[in-house]
This record gives sequence, structure tokens and C-alpha cells, in this order.
Amino acid sequence: MPRISTPSKIAGTQSYGAEVIFSGSTSVEREAVVAEVQARTGAILVPPYDDFNIICGQGTTALEMHAQYLDAVKEEPKLSVHNKAGGAGLDAVITPIGGGGLNSGVATFFSDKETKVFGAEPNFEGADDCRRGLDTGQRVEIVKTLTIADGLRTPVGVLNWEIISDKKKVVGAFSVSEEQIKAAMRLVLERMKVVVEPSAVVGLAVCLYNEEFRRLVEKEAPEGWDIGIVFSGGNTTVEAIGKLFSS
Amino acid sequence: MPRISTPSKIAGTQSYGAEVIFSGSTSVEREAVVAEVQARTGAILVPPYDDFNIICGQGTTALEMHAQYLDAVKEEPKLSVHNKAGGAGLDAVITPIGGGGLNSGVATFFSDKETKVFGAEPNFEGADDCRRGLDTGQRVEIVKTLTIADGLRTPVGVLNWEIISDKKKVVGAFSVSEEQIKAAMRLVLERMKVVVEPSAVVGLAVCLYNEEFRRLVEKEAPEGWDIGIVFSGGNTTVEAIGKLFSS
Repeated sequence: MPRISTPSKIAGTQSYGAEVIFSGSTSVEREAVVAEVQARTGAILVPPYDDFNIICGQGTTALEMHAQYLDAVKEEPKLSVHNKAGGAGLDAVITPIGGGGLNSGVATFFSDKETKVFGAEPNFEGADDCRRGLDTGQRVEIVKTLTIADGLRTPVGVLNWEIISDKKKVVGAFSVSEEQIKAAMRLVLERMKVVVEPSAVVGLAVCLYNEEFRRLVEKEAPEGWDIGIVFSGGNTTVEAIGKLFSS
Repeated sequence: MPRISTPSKIAGTQSYGAEVIFSGSTSVEREAVVAEVQARTGAILVPPYDDFNIICGQGTTALEMHAQYLDAVKEEPKLSVHNKAGGAGLDAVITPIGGGGLNSGVATFFSDKETKVFGAEPNFEGADDCRRGLDTGQRVEIVKTLTIADGLRTPVGVLNWEIISDKKKVVGAFSVSEEQIKAAMRLVLERMKVVVEPSAVVGLAVCLYNEEFRRLVEKEAPEGWDIGIVFSGGNTTVEAIGKLFSS
């Protein structure tokens, strides 16, 4: 784990009996420590995102959202801006993009459906590597950012990039500022009463504050979209929440 | 509203078009302001707890908990420590007690059922007025406390006391310290990922930390109880969470 991981995450992991080995915060530093531990102990790496099985597993999020949406609209047609009870599914889904495991998994699930898939990133210190990569057609390989969305500091993985940059599945990626992330986080905590970390709310922040994204929605559907927003995850502490909002 | 109400609660109320009139923090100070406003404007008071309809309304919490428990145990018998699928209901329910509206409503719902009802309070500066009243058989009429559980600073109301002190319904009240409330609140925020205010978690704190309550459960049911814990409510801000855990 990065040395700057939240104390509750470190303590929680250790409480299950794990030996926690620390590293620096960038993916390059982390991967160096992993390689050293593997060489020394023969440990097997369970990769966080750049892996077929991980992508499939994270893609089950989409399966659940799709089913929940169809159920909800069947019971309460007014929940849909289109009243499409028994319809085809969500108009769009947006997920955070760090390594891209979640987004590429969700995109794979929706690849044979009408639902459009989007990614959301912080734009602080170049953390919007997926958006920049989609602009140039070239995967950004190194990211060095200390965005508050600490789950999204990694560049998109190789396999994830193959799926995300295949324009048939993911329509695009949009990014938001640190202040926009904090505003969305405050809204979710204070009004939805759900504890989320900054990385979790970048999709919501795009929907609320990204002008380019809002213009796109207005152009495609003046009545709006039924959009599924993935909140992932909740690795934070009461102290970290306090610190984030005292500065 | 008390002048020390959380800014998000004040702003939220104003955003619905309300004129917010401020008062001091004790019930005596609040009631004086209410009387003045009523005399001046002819406004009608919707009482927070000491009222037949409010008690009935808050009692619907119990109706929902009871139904949810029966459904959950039917689908997943292992959720019950007794595997009593289709059984009589929860062994016990515990709610916060401030004015006692919630507790007396919940007690009324369960009065013809086997479920035992308990109350939970802070013990800071005499905030445990219900527990003390049950000990002496006499309602405590004035409470002056600045417990962090700011929703529970009021004494139990007259009608609520009639119901709560009628021993057929409420078995007893137990109290917890400020530190125990904070520990329970940290657990709910960091592990359950639910935003709660200090007042919300006094019932959980009693279950986890009150030795007298734990001995009672052990004596009555060595295998434990299926207990419903009411969390009410979530009136807090990110700043208030930070402040609470920085001291």
C-alpha cells in the first residue's frame, strides 16, 4: 500500500491478518515494490485493473445496475425521463477511470446494448490521462498526480485501454477539478447520507459541473438522460473527511 | 432553530423558502421563542415529540422494521440467531430517546408483540433524564446539557413519559458516554459508509459498550438477541464531522 493510505484502510487490512508492505504513491513506485516482494517470496500478484478476470469481475457492476434500473422503472415508470417501462435500459452510464478496470468492464457489459458508457477523471496535474489519450489516440503511460481522488492516480492499463479506446463501447471521458470533486462529495455525504471517497464522485461531478458533458446531453436528448452513476468507493476516515474540508 | 444548528440544516431549510428564527439551545429557551412567534404571528406549532399524532407517525418506524425483519429472516434464516423463519419478530428494538417521540411511538407499535423495547441516551451532563426518571418513577422536567448528541438534549415529553414509564412497553433506558458515541459514529461512517449524526448512534453504542445492557442480554439469552437499532438521523456536515474527530 502507498504510505499515505488512510489509517483505517491499513488497520482494517491488518486486522484480517495481512502483512502490509508500504511503497511510494505513484504506480511506478508501487510496481517496483511489488516486483521486489514477488522475487523475494514467490507471491502471486492479483492485479488491480489490467487483467481479463478483474475486468470481468468489475463489469458485474453494470449487470447489477442494468437489472436494478429495469426493475425500478417497471415499478415506478416516473423514475424514467422517458417513461420507458420495460424499455431497453439506461441511456447512459458514467464511472470513474483510474486504471480503467471498472470502466472497461462496464463498457464490455453494455457493448451489445443501447446504453452509452462514459468515463470520469480528475483533471488535476494531468490525472485526466484517459481523456488526453482518447484525444491523441495514444495511451498515456505515466501519470504523476496527487489529486484528492487518490484511487484515480494511475494511468489506464494496457488491456483496459484496448477496450476503452475502441470507440464502439466508450463514448468519451470527461474531467473535473478538485473543487468540483469536493462539491459533489459534500452533496453525497450531506444530502444522500452516503460515505464516499473523492474518487467515487467524479462521475457525479461530471454530470453536475462539466459544461462540455452537459452540452452533449442537451444536444442528444433535450429531455435529458436516465444515467447510471457508479460511486466507487468509500475508503476514507472521519479524520480524512475533516481534513479535506478544513483546507 | 437553535443558533448552533449545523449550517447545512439552516441553509437547507431556507432553500425551501422558510424564514428561520433562531433561539438558544435549551428547550426552555426554544419554547420561549416559539411562544413569542405564535403570539406575534398566529403561527401554529407542530410539536417535535409531545403530541399524539407525532408519536403515531414516528411509530411507523417500528412497523417498517418489523416487516423488514420478517422478510429478511424468511429469505435468509441465518440472519436470525434463532433461525426463527416466519417467527414472531425481533427480540428487541432500541431507539435514541430525546423528547421520546420516536421511542414512545415504537413502543406503542410493539405493545401487542413479544419484541422488547429499549431506549438509549447520552449520559453527559445529565442528558440521561429518561433513565434517571425511570429509576425514581418521576419524569425529569429540565435538562441542561451540551452533549454532542444534540438531538437528545431535551427532557422526555409529558405524553411520551406516560407511554415510556408504563413498564408494560419499554423495558428500560441505558446511557453512554461521549467517547462511546464517537466510537459508534466512527464505526457507522467508516465501515457501514452511512452518514449519521451523534444522536443517531446512541442505540448502537449501548449495544456495543454498555456493560449493564450486555449483562442483561447475556442473562436473558445466552445465544444473543436479534435486535433492531434505529439510527436517527443524519443532520450533520463534513465540517462538523471533521471538528468532532479533531478534538
